[in-house]
Amino acid sequence: MSLNASAQVQMANAIRALTMDAVQAANIGHPGMPMGMADVATVLWGEYLNFDPADPHWPDRDRFVLSAGHGSMLIYSLLHLTGYAEPTMDDIRNFRQLGSPCAGHPENTHIDGVECTTGPLGQGLAMGVGMAMAERHLNAHYGTDLVNHHTWVMAGDGCLMEGINHEAIGLAGHLKLGNLIVLWDDNNVTIDGAVGLSSSEDIPARYRASGWHVCLCDGHDPVSIRAAFDEAMADPRPSLVACRTIIGKGSPNKQGTSGVHGAPLGADEVAAARVELNWPHDPFVVPAEILADWRALAARGAGTNAAWKARLSASAKQADFAAQLGSIADKAAPALESYIRGLAANPPKVASRKASEMALGPLTETLTQLIGGSADLTGSNNTKTPATTPFTADSYGGRYVYYGIREFGMAAAMNGMFLHGGVVPYGGTFLIFSDYCRNAIRLSALQKAGVVYVLTHDSIGLGEDGPTHQPVEQVMSLRLIPNLNVYRPADAIETAECWALALQTPQTPSVLALSRQNLVPVRGAEDAQWTSATNRCAKGAYRLKSATAARKVVLMATGSEVSVAMDTAAALEAQGIGADVVSMPCQELFAAQSAAYKSDILPADALKVSIEAGVTQGWERYTGLDGLTIGLDTFGASAPAEVLFEHFGFSAAKIVPQILAKIGN
Amino acid sequence: MSLNASAQVQMANAIRALTMDAVQAANIGHPGMPMGMADVATVLWGEYLNFDPADPHWPDRDRFVLSAGHGSMLIYSLLHLTGYAEPTMDDIRNFRQLGSPCAGHPENTHIDGVECTTGPLGQGLAMGVGMAMAERHLNAHYGTDLVNHHTWVMAGDGCLMEGINHEAIGLAGHLKLGNLIVLWDDNNVTIDGAVGLSSSEDIPARYRASGWHVCLCDGHDPVSIRAAFDEAMADPRPSLVACRTIIGKGSPNKQGTSGVHGAPLGADEVAAARVELNWPHDPFVVPAEILADWRALAARGAGTNAAWKARLSASAKQADFAAQLGSIADKAAPALESYIRGLAANPPKVASRKASEMALGPLTETLTQLIGGSADLTGSNNTKTPATTPFTADSYGGRYVYYGIREFGMAAAMNGMFLHGGVVPYGGTFLIFSDYCRNAIRLSALQKAGVVYVLTHDSIGLGEDGPTHQPVEQVMSLRLIPNLNVYRPADAIETAECWALALQTPQTPSVLALSRQNLVPVRGAEDAQWTSATNRCAKGAYRLKSATAARKVVLMATGSEVSVAMDTAAALEAQGIGADVVSMPCQELFAAQSAAYKSDILPADALKVSIEAGVTQGWERYTGLDGLTIGLDTFGASAPAEVLFEHFGFSAAKIVPQILAKIGN
Repeated sequence: MSLNASAQVQMANAIRALTMDAVQAANIGHPGMPMGMADVATVLWGEYLNFDPADPHWPDRDRFVLSAGHGSMLIYSLLHLTGYAEPTMDDIRNFRQLGSPCAGHPENTHIDGVECTTGPLGQGLAMGVGMAMAERHLNAHYGTDLVNHHTWVMAGDGCLMEGINHEAIGLAGHLKLGNLIVLWDDNNVTIDGAVGLSSSEDIPARYRASGWHVCLCDGHDPVSIRAAFDEAMADPRPSLVACRTIIGKGSPNKQGTSGVHGAPLGADEVAAARVELNWPHDPFVVPAEILADWRALAARGAGTNAAWKARLSASAKQADFAAQLGSIADKAAPALESYIRGLAANPPKVASRKASEMALGPLTETLTQLIGGSADLTGSNNTKTPATTPFTADSYGGRYVYYGIREFGMAAAMNGMFLHGGVVPYGGTFLIFSDYCRNAIRLSALQKAGVVYVLTHDSIGLGEDGPTHQPVEQVMSLRLIPNLNVYRPADAIETAECWALALQTPQTPSVLALSRQNLVPVRGAEDAQWTSATNRCAKGAYRLKSATAARKVVLMATGSEVSVAMDTAAALEAQGIGADVVSMPCQELFAAQSAAYKSDILPADALKVSIEAGVTQGWERYTGLDGLTIGLDTFGASAPAEVLFEHFGFSAAKIVPQILAKIGN
Repeated sequence: MSLNASAQVQMANAIRALTMDAVQAANIGHPGMPMGMADVATVLWGEYLNFDPADPHWPDRDRFVLSAGHGSMLIYSLLHLTGYAEPTMDDIRNFRQLGSPCAGHPENTHIDGVECTTGPLGQGLAMGVGMAMAERHLNAHYGTDLVNHHTWVMAGDGCLMEGINHEAIGLAGHLKLGNLIVLWDDNNVTIDGAVGLSSSEDIPARYRASGWHVCLCDGHDPVSIRAAFDEAMADPRPSLVACRTIIGKGSPNKQGTSGVHGAPLGADEVAAARVELNWPHDPFVVPAEILADWRALAARGAGTNAAWKARLSASAKQADFAAQLGSIADKAAPALESYIRGLAANPPKVASRKASEMALGPLTETLTQLIGGSADLTGSNNTKTPATTPFTADSYGGRYVYYGIREFGMAAAMNGMFLHGGVVPYGGTFLIFSDYCRNAIRLSALQKAGVVYVLTHDSIGLGEDGPTHQPVEQVMSLRLIPNLNVYRPADAIETAECWALALQTPQTPSVLALSRQNLVPVRGAEDAQWTSATNRCAKGAYRLKSATAARKVVLMATGSEVSVAMDTAAALEAQGIGADVVSMPCQELFAAQSAAYKSDILPADALKVSIEAGVTQGWERYTGLDGLTIGLDTFGASAPAEVLFEHFGFSAAKIVPQILAKIGN
């Protein structure tokens, strides 16, 4: 049902007024995009979008993603006007102030109705791709009765110019995600000026080249907008709707210029806009009749939701569907129990990337929520299992995504899938290429999206590919990201334990840093009765070997260097020097332990030595200034792994003398 | 002059043979691309490319970039066969072994003729864009007689699928870089299998949409290759030449499959390929007559080079040209001298981003090599000066690049420009978006490319834009990259000093982390006679204020927190507790100082306290375990800067009690 034409104008102007008033009150913000896209947003939310303010988590709701997150007042206005519990008008008055859910950029953890956190350009659209993938996957398993919704993305020129856009739309086009519709705010203005200052691209042609349907509309004409939306919904391909708009529309002297993109209009221009828009109302006041028009929209979504709930209740798949959407946190460790017990009997000497594949066998067999994939390194990342058949345009029910050579697009899609719900994605690339998707990993952490990054080839131990491919600073630098658990397991059992832990923290994403080269097992028989309760990696660091002679040294290491620490300890013990070995697969989990546990593991009265084939800065947190940090503070080199380990000093023969010098032996 | 047809076949087979033999000997590597592109490479180097093995640094040589760097045996074969001093055949025998210049991926610092380090996909092509930009810029100033060469890039499907490709070709198309020609190894195979597994893109259409000329050729037919090259050279737009090839061509049982992409052929298949190629020669043996055909090619380049040298000698611009290509390392500090002395008389309270703009005034006025730019944040990064007029397709002589919303493409282009020579690029974005271009920053460091990253909005001090835009871990994580100097200056004078230092290290790239908010000056009158020799930032850390009372505390801080440290010291001194304040704008430079200097600045007998509005891990290197690290180990929030500083504890009032507790007062 179409909105009444004059009501539509007033409803859109309510968005414009709230936007300019909130930005003015904060004295900082981005009025241009919300004012420019207000008409498009009003038609979308007024006539097309399926949403229910009373039930923001309704699984079959349409997803709305404001990829141009700087235009946050658009979504805050929409949520308030349509009757979500938050933001209140006071929240909007406090736009960009401490404690207000109306943060500078929309954050999914602050407010219902914000499906994902946006602002870092391009990622919202790429997360939308992931949401659309999750939707199709669940549709394939649960049918159109239970899962059939659209993902609507609003994006600006910035979102389209960023490299990730190419990756995201390439993936979406290839996967024929017809339920994905991107509304491009085609206003021809960027921060630096006209788009033509830096780009001459024929954007529709590029989208078509990537398998998209493209249509155009006048973004200020509801009739034109509707026609474009109808065409987009009818087309089986993902759609780009180019909405020709005037940035900052309503600001008589500033609209259409870059000046309105990211700065308050100023009191005089706000007043002039009130005249221009015929909006005589006080700041933060929306007249009752206009608010009523907005609030009336909720009925449509409520009805659709009620009908959906009725279908769910009647469905034979109701319990399965609930389970699919439920947490898998408690299920990971049990799924691994018999596998780990088997390892204990016969610990294999395998690369941890291989051990990861082995652990993924029972995990993916048991946990149907897991959707794997790799950025074109399937055989190297060891991410595919028999249970994860390919997810393709012809088979959305599959659980393995060939993401292509698109690390950033993959990571953002994983975030989108996770935030959609019903699936838990993991994805692989080389650890070095975490650099390519680093900001999406950060957004996993900021959004509390418990995805798992399988990052293999985790040190100079990858050997001959050389310094371009050898992570040196990556492990430590990932540890610096808040709310991200970085695991670097030492052998097959630790790898399985870390997988269990990674899936036990649905609000914290995880990185598994895994070796290319085979690793000597350091765990075994003691795990014959392994259970979740005996997971030794759970405390982040643990004493793998106790000193035999009087303890003078504690060696701490991660991943492939744990066996180097074991060799070093043996050499020290042979000289009568007692040495503990501490395996420290996850610094973040160790940091959360009690002071007593920490001082037991890293006692004050021993020389503390860290061994990790990466940069040393950061390890002083555990060794202190009187300890030793064995690491690699330069780029690596191209040679076989064992040559490099010796060359860069990762052997007992090279380490022991440094320890002896330090303890004065 | 066209190569003789049968000679061409043999010459190309020499590449194939060296490739399969070297990969086989190393037992690891990527034979598929060199064997597939051998014919294209032979025509290019044999008939088109201007190169002179006797003078690899000839400024007007064509640039050849192997963006698909995993195919490194292609460039090693070409350099050896055409007579470069390196690699020798022994170097090739030692492919991928420690000490060989023939590293797994080509590294510019190892071997002449490798114009840039490639392997991280997509970046070679993007660096090629930068090289083509530098060429056009120098052409604009020095004319076609002195500067007129092509940049030839070989790229695979991976380079084209990566997001950075979109940014790079968008920039190149917009700038109409007609001297840039990309040879796409269109072999339809990626690591995971057929390209169609993950992509359905119409690549030529996408390139055309970005303003490129596209032509096709049969990559195994010299006649077809020549026709395409001729067409590409004639077209005024940048060109994509789609070279239809068979990956691993010559391997009878493996060619055309993903199996030949990244693994040795195996002894049996190498033998079979020898038969297939009619190449009965022993491994690493190139018959004299075939080698002679290759070596003869050098004459063309030598002649062109000689003619160029003659033109240079006769040119009125000879001295200017030499100066343009010379180092600016000694010129930066003198250019700033009178400016800094002026600041000393009247230290301004400005944001360090503004101070950077002020320093760039005299720098860009004096140093014509500097080419600035920003990824669509010119007014926020403060990167533009009066001397840097826009670099556009109509005005390549300009020195300011509107890079668009393309951080990764910008950083890679900066690397390419620097490695081309004759220009020294700096470019700006928000510090948070260093995440988007992180691997290009790493490649600056690995390649010893002394570019300067102007990264503003460097902490929660940016305020209301909130956690998506607030760097928390970025400063420390950039410090972890080897051979990268990270500067975080405290006020206008320090900012100028850091700019001088950044330009004094042409083999080390620099990051300037700069504030959005105004900073209280901490330096002044003592710099009235400032010279390079008095640059206090040069040692990385220095005592800004000495304790008045008996010293119990040393406060170290960077950037905007230096004034917080000054406030804290004043509060401590008021209680009779002596406190030094150490400003530490560059940890890397401090690390290079003598032990005596370091222990003087950070004495063992004082409580050491770090204050930085970022993650604390890494600061223990300076505070020890008995010190205090004041920082921010969570994400930020959206609010005005001063509110956030207080909220997160960056004030003397919040810090002093922690110090008192620690020292038992």
